[in-house]
Amino acid sequence: MKKLWPIVSKNAVTTNCLGLCGIRLTGVSEIEFRSDMTVELVRASAQDSDVIFAARVSTQGEQTLEAAQAEQEAQKKDRGLLNYLMRDRHGSPFEHNSMTFYVQAPIFVFREFMRHRIASYNEESGRYRELKPVFYVPDENRNLIQIGKPGSYEFEPGTAEQQALVQQEVMSVTRASYESYQRMLEAGVAREVARIALPLNIYSSMYVTMNARSLMNFLSLRTKREDSHFPSYPQREIEMCAEPMEEAWAKLMPISHEMFNLNGRVAP
Amino acid sequence: MKKLWPIVSKNAVTTNCLGLCGIRLTGVSEIEFRSDMTVELVRASAQDSDVIFAARVSTQGEQTLEAAQAEQEAQKKDRGLLNYLMRDRHGSPFEHNSMTFYVQAPIFVFREFMRHRIASYNEESGRYRELKPVFYVPDENRNLIQIGKPGSYEFEPGTAEQQALVQQEVMSVTRASYESYQRMLEAGVAREVARIALPLNIYSSMYVTMNARSLMNFLSLRTKREDSHFPSYPQREIEMCAEPMEEAWAKLMPISHEMFNLNGRVAP
Amino acid sequence: MKKLWPIVSKNAVTTNCLGLCGIRLTGVSEIEFRSDMTVELVRASAQDSDVIFAARVSTQGEQTLEAAQAEQEAQKKDRGLLNYLMRDRHGSPFEHNSMTFYVQAPIFVFREFMRHRIASYNEESGRYRELKPVFYVPDENRNLIQIGKPGSYEFEPGTAEQQALVQQEVMSVTRASYESYQRMLEAGVAREVARIALPLNIYSSMYVTMNARSLMNFLSLRTKREDSHFPSYPQREIEMCAEPMEEAWAKLMPISHEMFNLNGRVAP
Amino acid sequence: MKKLWPIVSKNAVTTNCLGLCGIRLTGVSEIEFRSDMTVELVRASAQDSDVIFAARVSTQGEQTLEAAQAEQEAQKKDRGLLNYLMRDRHGSPFEHNSMTFYVQAPIFVFREFMRHRIASYNEESGRYRELKPVFYVPDENRNLIQIGKPGSYEFEPGTAEQQALVQQEVMSVTRASYESYQRMLEAGVAREVARIALPLNIYSSMYVTMNARSLMNFLSLRTKREDSHFPSYPQREIEMCAEPMEEAWAKLMPISHEMFNLNGRVAP
Repeated sequence: MKKLWPIVSKNAVTTNCLGLCGIRLTGVSEIEFRSDMTVELVRASAQDSDVIFAARVSTQGEQTLEAAQAEQEAQKKDRGLLNYLMRDRHGSPFEHNSMTFYVQAPIFVFREFMRHRIASYNEESGRYRELKPVFYVPDENRNLIQIGKPGSYEFEPGTAEQQALVQQEVMSVTRASYESYQRMLEAGVAREVARIALPLNIYSSMYVTMNARSLMNFLSLRTKREDSHFPSYPQREIEMCAEPMEEAWAKLMPISHEMFNLNGRVAP
Repeated sequence: MKKLWPIVSKNAVTTNCLGLCGIRLTGVSEIEFRSDMTVELVRASAQDSDVIFAARVSTQGEQTLEAAQAEQEAQKKDRGLLNYLMRDRHGSPFEHNSMTFYVQAPIFVFREFMRHRIASYNEESGRYRELKPVFYVPDENRNLIQIGKPGSYEFEPGTAEQQALVQQEVMSVTRASYESYQRMLEAGVAREVARIALPLNIYSSMYVTMNARSLMNFLSLRTKREDSHFPSYPQREIEMCAEPMEEAWAKLMPISHEMFNLNGRVAP
Repeated sequence: MKKLWPIVSKNAVTTNCLGLCGIRLTGVSEIEFRSDMTVELVRASAQDSDVIFAARVSTQGEQTLEAAQAEQEAQKKDRGLLNYLMRDRHGSPFEHNSMTFYVQAPIFVFREFMRHRIASYNEESGRYRELKPVFYVPDENRNLIQIGKPGSYEFEPGTAEQQALVQQEVMSVTRASYESYQRMLEAGVAREVARIALPLNIYSSMYVTMNARSLMNFLSLRTKREDSHFPSYPQREIEMCAEPMEEAWAKLMPISHEMFNLNGRVAP
Repeated sequence: MKKLWPIVSKNAVTTNCLGLCGIRLTGVSEIEFRSDMTVELVRASAQDSDVIFAARVSTQGEQTLEAAQAEQEAQKKDRGLLNYLMRDRHGSPFEHNSMTFYVQAPIFVFREFMRHRIASYNEESGRYRELKPVFYVPDENRNLIQIGKPGSYEFEPGTAEQQALVQQEVMSVTRASYESYQRMLEAGVAREVARIALPLNIYSSMYVTMNARSLMNFLSLRTKREDSHFPSYPQREIEMCAEPMEEAWAKLMPISHEMFNLNGRVAP
């Protein structure tokens, strides 16, 4: 993990331009198309042992440290305790930690993200700066066709024609919208007005801070897994944010993550 | 207040079509342009007296009722108590009440709205239904030009040319985007994919529930008033939601509202 | 439901004095012993139909009302929808409602109660008024002996000797503590200081406001039921508050309550 | 800051025994009297620069780092930005950080503490372990007499007689209560029952985690300062927890702390 926030080197943004980047637009900006999300862990204070200590305060008071260190078997006990907390949904010990992520994703993803209220957000504002022409377009890995009924759709790739149509439509609308945005800005219209007709696939960026309990709730709802006790059917693009967040968390708190999976991915 | 939720009669939606509504679009849907917001109070359990009782439990315990009724001067005392609570920021007594609003507004407004975390939201989903072609376009009352520096912009109307440009650009982009959305849907693309290039000025609808304390926080940040102790510079369109919410609240809890104004519109 | 809050008639408090009430104490106050809790619903805006409307906004937008009324089968569909929301843990539609309870219980119960953060509280304050001599003592229905291991204790009644001992000890300590409190007050000591050695079984009173989603979380943790998907082992005295709260909620939102039980009493 | 949680060395607990500690009690335990609070920062991820980065994402997007480093004047600008955020109450950038404290304090303090809902708590439980005989008694620095009217009491030391009375009463009640607790435990009564008549001045311990925004709210309400824009009249004992928490925070985020003071100690 980096010591300094900003984090955001050009390299970090693995663009996937579909061969269409770099087209000059009315001499002002280059439109960039991407099909991926940027998720970087920029700050964390999060360890399995924090959960252990917080949980043990309720049963052992101040002996915590000695108790934890005295025994050879400590680690085995710790795994057992974490499993017990997760299984029986004792959630509060998972709150004494903190993870801050920097995320770049299209606005339609942020719309879903910010429905999670037990989190802290600071997002780039289109009122205070001119938005950059970076837009999302689905790549060939994104299934385009849904089958089944509401609440439990299944997705399939779609035909080559459908894929071509989506890319063409999205790119064409995007370009036209951004040109229009530029014309309004050039005519002296306020940024907060000019932006209103920009499309939902424009990228934004934010810092989001969560604790492990809140993150588990996010993951249980925003990843689709066979082994989930309560099934979720997230939109693929927010899952593309959730997956690297889960990966980062699993490195910080591997036993908690293991027990989360072992117990049906239910947030305690 | 209506007894049944849905609320949403056609009449409720005071459309303001700028003479441009009703244009057929590729034989599928009519695009509607609006310049207003719909805000309806659909449920409320909120009275000044609730605040009084909740505040008095801390000082008087169970005598609450008798104490409140015994005296001729009760009402005067109540005003004094509400003023005191507001001025010294004793906020918790303002939480024992509930207001549910039905709101129709463009997505760029909902984006700001949902940053308020002490509230409950259920919004129309573009994943589960085809979105209707209703879009926001600023009318002549919406100032288009900002002057001043970040954090304290002032807005001015703009020239007739600027007004014409904004309406033309917004409508043109909107129509093109919605046509594109329709073409993708007709080609069998999933709703959640087809919607990604729709513009931020498309209307959505939601139910939002808040208590008076949370609403005061919302109002303090989302209305621009000379008499605010802490100044706020909200985007005009969310203020257009906040104003009828404030009006509805003022009818339910007139003394609380008066004291909110009297004490600099600071949420207690 | 009553129109006015205070609610708290003497009759409402079903005292259970164990034949020991009414003993004069240093000529100042009568100590009262109780073994029950007071829970009264004083305000509510909560119906099953509110959940339905909130849930349907996501799929049907503004047609909500007509759709709900058009069909003979509406009620059957509503039950199905509520079951689906509960089972798959779509919790937000259960938030657009509000219930305010007046509760009298010992402080050791309020200590557990107020760990529930998604709720609004106003409690009687021992800083602003002299606390009344009303104390909790377990009656013969309260199991006194725990067996088993931490996390899943079972309780048994205890012997007659144990029951007598508990009543005698609790009453004796209580009386001595309250006499001491009175002596300090009479000597001019501030209430907030004199109260510090009062026992945890002294009754306090509060207003608490929750929505159905938060209440279900409370009930899932504060009632012990065989049919719970995730087992809980609450202290009996807080369960004595939770039970009448559940009863009141079940009357207001009977289908939601039924589905909560049907789906393992997991808060959605 | 220590790397490992438990933190709680005997030395950390600066006991203040009033010459009365160490009295054997029915051959079972030694009662300890204290007049102080233990507050230790056990984990923190909190710096002024975190606030800066979070705030700048809204205006500068990903250029954050370069912008911050490019200029000689960066630090001056940072101070200006923090002042602006505090003054105009832009609170969210102060949320991307985390502080975990270990606190030992009497239960009557924890009762007030836990009313702060934007925080995470894990407290020692009297259901799972036998509580230790450590009790609070006011020392000579604690003013015992209140004058003035509700809402704005002033406190004065009290006479030598009043001081002696309080110490005698509190210690005597405390001892009697703890002896009673011991007798019930020895007779086989469950811990959760035996504890109910323990006095409110018994010490408990907890971990509490907050971010700087939530901590500022806590400090604004739980410290009494002449320079507060909104006056607060906290009970002295919780202020004794708030003060070392503020001190620890001021070391971690000195500029934020300075601006908090400069702007009337209003949580943004």
